[in-house]
Amino acid sequence: MTDKPTLAILGGTGNQGPSLAMRWARAGYKIIIGSRQAEKAQRVAAELNEKLGIHTIEGLQNDDAARTADICVLTVVQSAHQSALKGLKEALQGKVLIDTTARVEFRDPKPPEQPSAARLAQEILGDGVTVAAAFQNVSASVLRKNLDQPIKADVLVCSDDLEAAEQVIALAESGGMHALYAGGLDNAVVVEGLTALLISINKHYGGHSSIQVVGINE
Amino acid sequence: MTDKPTLAILGGTGNQGPSLAMRWARAGYKIIIGSRQAEKAQRVAAELNEKLGIHTIEGLQNDDAARTADICVLTVVQSAHQSALKGLKEALQGKVLIDTTARVEFRDPKPPEQPSAARLAQEILGDGVTVAAAFQNVSASVLRKNLDQPIKADVLVCSDDLEAAEQVIALAESGGMHALYAGGLDNAVVVEGLTALLISINKHYGGHSSIQVVGINE
Repeated sequence: MTDKPTLAILGGTGNQGPSLAMRWARAGYKIIIGSRQAEKAQRVAAELNEKLGIHTIEGLQNDDAARTADICVLTVVQSAHQSALKGLKEALQGKVLIDTTARVEFRDPKPPEQPSAARLAQEILGDGVTVAAAFQNVSASVLRKNLDQPIKADVLVCSDDLEAAEQVIALAESGGMHALYAGGLDNAVVVEGLTALLISINKHYGGHSSIQVVGINE
Repeated sequence: MTDKPTLAILGGTGNQGPSLAMRWARAGYKIIIGSRQAEKAQRVAAELNEKLGIHTIEGLQNDDAARTADICVLTVVQSAHQSALKGLKEALQGKVLIDTTARVEFRDPKPPEQPSAARLAQEILGDGVTVAAAFQNVSASVLRKNLDQPIKADVLVCSDDLEAAEQVIALAESGGMHALYAGGLDNAVVVEGLTALLISINKHYGGHSSIQVVGINE
């Protein structure tokens, strides 16, 4: 019936991973939740299946999830970013990896320095993996609020591979997010840093801020 | 009649400076165009007066302009950023300086590294000057298009001094720009970097892109 790629949400038991997973499951993608512990992945998969009234979301250990999927989405906590990538290097060969990591602390939000998290991922994984950066600023609570409603936030997609970027843009759109190609992996450090600004804005004004790009000819 | 502060647009003979100057002149601010050469400043001031059908815009050498003004707006080309600040250090003591510099090349747009241009400005000028960063991403051509129309772009204002940030926000609003406080001077490196992303977006999609912040409780 479907030629949609299978998605693995690696480190997908937190806040951001399940929020994205639910939107993509609703859009008809086959979803695998990955975690370091298979049981934890299975428990979260079962919870999401129950919430959505489906039974197609699976839970696997991260490396099994990565091997089974066509596109992998990394949603680990920032402190686990590099160690997770090192452990998954082999399983990720030949895949597209979407890195959602923003290395910003909520309590003391500072813009991170180059290399971007996604550039680091590319360096760790090597040329056999195509890395894109996206979804760093999309609020989990906004994603969850009305799963079938488009959200008012633009996803900035950075990749050195335009074809991969276009896959990510299509994925974002299928989850109700407007997405734009915003240049190569080095530009992703700005998207990470935007998280620091948006946290500052939220602390000052309240709310769950995000950005939209205006003034383009689409 | 007016208690509006006098504004000096330092290095104000380029593209961005006059565009901002015209909007603020229309909003009733007293404007001084600054340049390294007084004659050049006077020529641009005369051109702007003619365009607007007024005669209140003055042209002075940068340091005279800075001394006369309450708020100074730095719109020099990025290669002159540090040398201009060093030369103006004395004249700027006691003032608010708004740094509009984005250290990004159009041909090869890369996000700049910390310290932000505005943090550098603060370090060069010392504690006697209150620095804010703003207007880095606002397109001169968009500003000029309909001088009396609000523009569809949010100005992100960064400063370690909230009172100065609020002055800049009021100034932006008076020129038809929506503005938000986005944290301290270190956050300004992200706003500079956004320029690189917006150039990438413009090259890919066409147009004059800018950003808007959505989802806040104002």
